[in-house]
Amino acid sequence: MQKPLVETRSLLLDRPFHLESGDSISPLTIAYEIYGEDPGTEKQVILIEHALSGSAHAAFYHEGETKPGWWDDMIGPGKAFDTEHYRVICTNVIGGCNGSTGPSSINPVTGKPFALSFPPITIRDMTEAQRALLAQLGIDRIRCIVGGSMGGMQALQFFSDYPDQFDSFICIASTMRHSAQQIAFNEVGRRAIMADPRWNGGNYYGDIPPEGGLSVARMIGHITYISEHMMQEKFGRIRKDKDLRAIFRPSFEVEHYLDYQGVSFVRRFDANSYLYITSAIDNFDLVTSISGMGRFRGESRARGTRLTTLETKKGLVISFTSDWLYPSEQSRAIVRFFSGLNVGVSYAEITTEHGHDAFLTDHEQQTHLIRSFLESLEHAQ
Amino acid sequence: MQKPLVETRSLLLDRPFHLESGDSISPLTIAYEIYGEDPGTEKQVILIEHALSGSAHAAFYHEGETKPGWWDDMIGPGKAFDTEHYRVICTNVIGGCNGSTGPSSINPVTGKPFALSFPPITIRDMTEAQRALLAQLGIDRIRCIVGGSMGGMQALQFFSDYPDQFDSFICIASTMRHSAQQIAFNEVGRRAIMADPRWNGGNYYGDIPPEGGLSVARMIGHITYISEHMMQEKFGRIRKDKDLRAIFRPSFEVEHYLDYQGVSFVRRFDANSYLYITSAIDNFDLVTSISGMGRFRGESRARGTRLTTLETKKGLVISFTSDWLYPSEQSRAIVRFFSGLNVGVSYAEITTEHGHDAFLTDHEQQTHLIRSFLESLEHAQ
Repeated sequence: MQKPLVETRSLLLDRPFHLESGDSISPLTIAYEIYGEDPGTEKQVILIEHALSGSAHAAFYHEGETKPGWWDDMIGPGKAFDTEHYRVICTNVIGGCNGSTGPSSINPVTGKPFALSFPPITIRDMTEAQRALLAQLGIDRIRCIVGGSMGGMQALQFFSDYPDQFDSFICIASTMRHSAQQIAFNEVGRRAIMADPRWNGGNYYGDIPPEGGLSVARMIGHITYISEHMMQEKFGRIRKDKDLRAIFRPSFEVEHYLDYQGVSFVRRFDANSYLYITSAIDNFDLVTSISGMGRFRGESRARGTRLTTLETKKGLVISFTSDWLYPSEQSRAIVRFFSGLNVGVSYAEITTEHGHDAFLTDHEQQTHLIRSFLESLEHAQ
Repeated sequence: MQKPLVETRSLLLDRPFHLESGDSISPLTIAYEIYGEDPGTEKQVILIEHALSGSAHAAFYHEGETKPGWWDDMIGPGKAFDTEHYRVICTNVIGGCNGSTGPSSINPVTGKPFALSFPPITIRDMTEAQRALLAQLGIDRIRCIVGGSMGGMQALQFFSDYPDQFDSFICIASTMRHSAQQIAFNEVGRRAIMADPRWNGGNYYGDIPPEGGLSVARMIGHITYISEHMMQEKFGRIRKDKDLRAIFRPSFEVEHYLDYQGVSFVRRFDANSYLYITSAIDNFDLVTSISGMGRFRGESRARGTRLTTLETKKGLVISFTSDWLYPSEQSRAIVRFFSGLNVGVSYAEITTEHGHDAFLTDHEQQTHLIRSFLESLEHAQ
């Protein structure tokens, strides 16, 4: 079978984009990809939200590349998000470094990269940017918004802010708010970046970036992404290098693995984006945010009709037994919260040893659950 | 009551000290403290082993100081290790930076700090240095060797290498070997230090040390030292600073806490010592080491009589329910291993929310267990 190709497109917003901080970005570029587009047909839309280090390239292949998008196992003809039936859209978050405007983008006022003059962003800013993109594409109705990890936060935020626009959400391996420990892991990553003198107050563009610090941040992340059990099964105490003097270089297999993860990450990710996006994650607090009691002056939204609206909506929450970064208890809290709002929420805990990364790797069980869920939406009508 | 005073003493070894790596250190200095010394009496000796960042100052007060030693809750008149009944000795590990020879010590050959020319050390090197100190002090019999965390590793190693010298061991919140995840956390800490340009290949003495890197390493450590639950209870999502722009400074309480831990650590600990000691911990593998199948050429020891010798020995293993750095399963493995060698091992799992740090903080239950254990040694005679 021929590899299905896709191109990352770029949309320039036709108006200044206002953020929760009170700042605005103008112009704002949003990178996005669309899978399963058939001109002339009226397919329903599935909106995909990516995680911390993801991009708009969720599926299919870029011309000339051998590796498909990050969720290609889940998106395509006959897959969980079947592109024969749905028009599937994925956008890159603002603040990122994969096509949408972020700290590494050129500030049109100065002609230089924004760096730390980029305004702080929130999860809601990410979804509001998506909303602007959808409006410009003429899309006002979404069959299902779905994401894992930070993608799940966006799915919950967007769905809660505009329930009229969505039939359903799927939230995988995520949470309504970070615990102290989750903030702590992110903070140590940020500190590792900022402790690297090459970070230089965020002004490293055109120079060597803070590779050491960003690499350490990614290594910390990877420890939390996989389960203790899988790490032990995969690496145990195996070592490539039995020299007792190998204090100052990787020696155990697990050290080589983390080293590889760190090194390959710095090639594709911007350190300032890491700071902005992890802060958005830590600041995310769904309940506070949608109760209008948030810290930030959000634009006021008509919420009076929400409760009645929500009764016709559906949600699917998925967690993984060995995910110790976003443990199942946090997913169960999501289920309780949305059930309390009369959303018809289903919950599944998948038994796996793959830890948090299971949302990227364990596609079979997820496919089964998601396909049934999307089918149930058809029957509900 | 008057504060009991103690001084850190220093012993210069009267012979070159040979390491498992084949290197030797000469001269070797060992810092130690003795509590409950009563000239003329014949008290039995308790040997205290400290953890990663500990020192010989386990109890009592240094002249003019308001803070006692790190295990003062456990050592003193009427306490778990009752200095009315026992002579309690604590020594600083070699490779450290609190009085014993380590990478920050002056190399007598060059007149400069050893830095990375300091030879690699092992947990057994630490205990062999102690053994040399004890020999020079004229002590050849130990009632009990005790330690938590890395101190527990030393207790197991020393006891296993010379069972004739010990009546018993107490091993708290420790393991016989690091898992892949435990190695991973240490490795990320090491990488944070080495990624700091001020580390400068280990040559920073007389200059600004790699404070940023060492601080990040300590912050990672602290996340693993306390339980997720306690972190949540203590800090939750409370923030001192509600400014959304606080991306680049601590904002949440948990961030301030970690920041404080990092900053105060760099004032008292040497970054190179951190590298050497964490590597010794990762390399530690008790079973391999005492089966003589180890990676390193150790001096040969007469082990033929061990099994019969061990039948008269006792051990106490303690773990804490919320310790996710050294989970109880690793303590149960210690119990199984020494039971298999016919050591009379007791095991207690203490219910606490204080995580790994409980070995330093939860003194009441530990005191109860340890006092009973030490009393049982009396009855056994």
